Amino acid sequence: MHATALAHSNIALVKYWGKRDRALNLPVAGSLSLTLGGLATTTTVHFRPELESDLVSLDGRELRPGSVAHRRIADFLDLVRNDAGITSFAEVETANNFPTAAGLASSASGFAALALAATHAAGQQLTDAQLSVLARRGSGSAARSIFGGFAEMSAGTRADGRDAHARALAGPEHWDLRCVVAVTTQGEKDVSSTEGMTRTQETSPLFEPWARTVDADIAQARHAVETRDFALLGRVAERSCLGMHASAMAADPGVIYWNPTTIEVIHRVRRARRDGLQIFFTIDAGPHVKVFCPARELSALRSVLSQIDGVNDLIVARPGQGAHLLES
Amino acid sequence: MHATALAHSNIALVKYWGKRDRALNLPVAGSLSLTLGGLATTTTVHFRPELESDLVSLDGRELRPGSVAHRRIADFLDLVRNDAGITSFAEVETANNFPTAAGLASSASGFAALALAATHAAGQQLTDAQLSVLARRGSGSAARSIFGGFAEMSAGTRADGRDAHARALAGPEHWDLRCVVAVTTQGEKDVSSTEGMTRTQETSPLFEPWARTVDADIAQARHAVETRDFALLGRVAERSCLGMHASAMAADPGVIYWNPTTIEVIHRVRRARRDGLQIFFTIDAGPHVKVFCPARELSALRSVLSQIDGVNDLIVARPGQGAHLLES
Repeated sequence: MHATALAHSNIALVKYWGKRDRALNLPVAGSLSLTLGGLATTTTVHFRPELESDLVSLDGRELRPGSVAHRRIADFLDLVRNDAGITSFAEVETANNFPTAAGLASSASGFAALALAATHAAGQQLTDAQLSVLARRGSGSAARSIFGGFAEMSAGTRADGRDAHARALAGPEHWDLRCVVAVTTQGEKDVSSTEGMTRTQETSPLFEPWARTVDADIAQARHAVETRDFALLGRVAERSCLGMHASAMAADPGVIYWNPTTIEVIHRVRRARRDGLQIFFTIDAGPHVKVFCPARELSALRSVLSQIDGVNDLIVARPGQGAHLLES
Repeated sequence: MHATALAHSNIALVKYWGKRDRALNLPVAGSLSLTLGGLATTTTVHFRPELESDLVSLDGRELRPGSVAHRRIADFLDLVRNDAGITSFAEVETANNFPTAAGLASSASGFAALALAATHAAGQQLTDAQLSVLARRGSGSAARSIFGGFAEMSAGTRADGRDAHARALAGPEHWDLRCVVAVTTQGEKDVSSTEGMTRTQETSPLFEPWARTVDADIAQARHAVETRDFALLGRVAERSCLGMHASAMAADPGVIYWNPTTIEVIHRVRRARRDGLQIFFTIDAGPHVKVFCPARELSALRSVLSQIDGVNDLIVARPGQGAHLLES
């Protein structure tokens, strides 16, 4: 009744923003991502009949039962218990090998690892698609971290969400890209992703028009991945990123995740590209900027980013593997 | 055959962005503005039969015939000549009492003053509405600078644009507001307003949805002006500003007028408001931020803005008069 799984974080190149069903965590539109090697969560789940509630430790720190983080994990475990027909509480140990608060989508790797470890510990063997559906219940972006390399998430059309899952587009060996995360000084991040997403969806006149662009962006990005067309992938990714942030900015009141360094990095990336460097940026619901380049451009990119005031740290990732079980 | 006129710049609180006819400079939607006392252009026009081309000096510097700036003024004078049935070229002296390159809409005050001085020098007496129609041909925002205080611009529906002009909403004495322009370090401004507007309109999926919000914003802003509801005016103004910039950001490639200081000022204004200060911001197609407050809050506002790194200058304006003739 125990298992250990590892999953990597991922970064959406065609953005996920907005839910069509909040209870089932169903997205309004699809998305397309790259799973990031190196940014990993390792999670062990052990169902133990003697426990009286779920016991969860995150990065060595025990989560208080009733806290938001604990509830989110316990609710997720309930889904697995219901499916598997077991009633035991679980001991969960989960640890990230990267800064949890740095806007690096630890919920993506976290719920992907938890889905795999918990179902295995519960004696289930799910297909990747089923795992992706389950992981989505914990976090929309976790559905993509089941897969390595490039993954495409479908919004699906079913009310029960069984067709809302990711699928593999191309494995990590397909394209030797690098993603450099420019960790910027934390400005005002007083709006969580979920809150910002909800406010955007409820009040921004630009949300639906943006969401309607996603299918075409996915088709172009998929083609760019298949043909390894870096310039095209960059164009679609920046358009998707800016469109998502624009839709949020036009909420009422406007949701602005950027800080001064975010803007500076955007301008520098564009300038370096005009100067001939093959790079593009993307930004999630936070102030950090993720910059992509072909592997051979990595040192030039590091040099551009490290010269920017306010960039506190650079984290380099390469295409990563999908979620998998570890020997425990 | 000569006359001198003075007109003030204005700042749109409900933004103007996008044209329905480029030749006639007809806007897609209306706008609502405050004319800014202090930021003035003074223009003298003298039709002289002996001239062989228009002779234009801006801030004491003679414009080269054939240059973009000279052509724009000569084309405008042609409209006046055609209407008045005169053929003489003109000597034009125009001067701003504020930095021309600081993103302070010198074309608004410039073409409003030119419209009034040129028609008067040509022996015409136009109504304010007619002057506003004419000024619009030079610059969309100039149509509003014909009027003092708060002005509302109509998009109109006629193909000839005769109903696309501004009208007075409330004179400068109606509401004792201050507008403080935070002049920020110039970042990358490589996209002119006209180019940004065109690219937004042609490529941004968020342009039309934004333009459809303008009428409702104008109605709310007009009500806020009539009832001197500062909080409501601020809410509409920030929404309109962020929506306009969002629509531009979602162009392909995205048009980003902000620099790091722009973002910092936005966050500081929001924070100061949470702390109780009555202020709101608006931003045009450039990196500077215009911050509004009731007159009594001016010193507190100056103190907030002057503490921000990257804010190079503060220019304070109060509600201004409409365009008027000066004794020459």
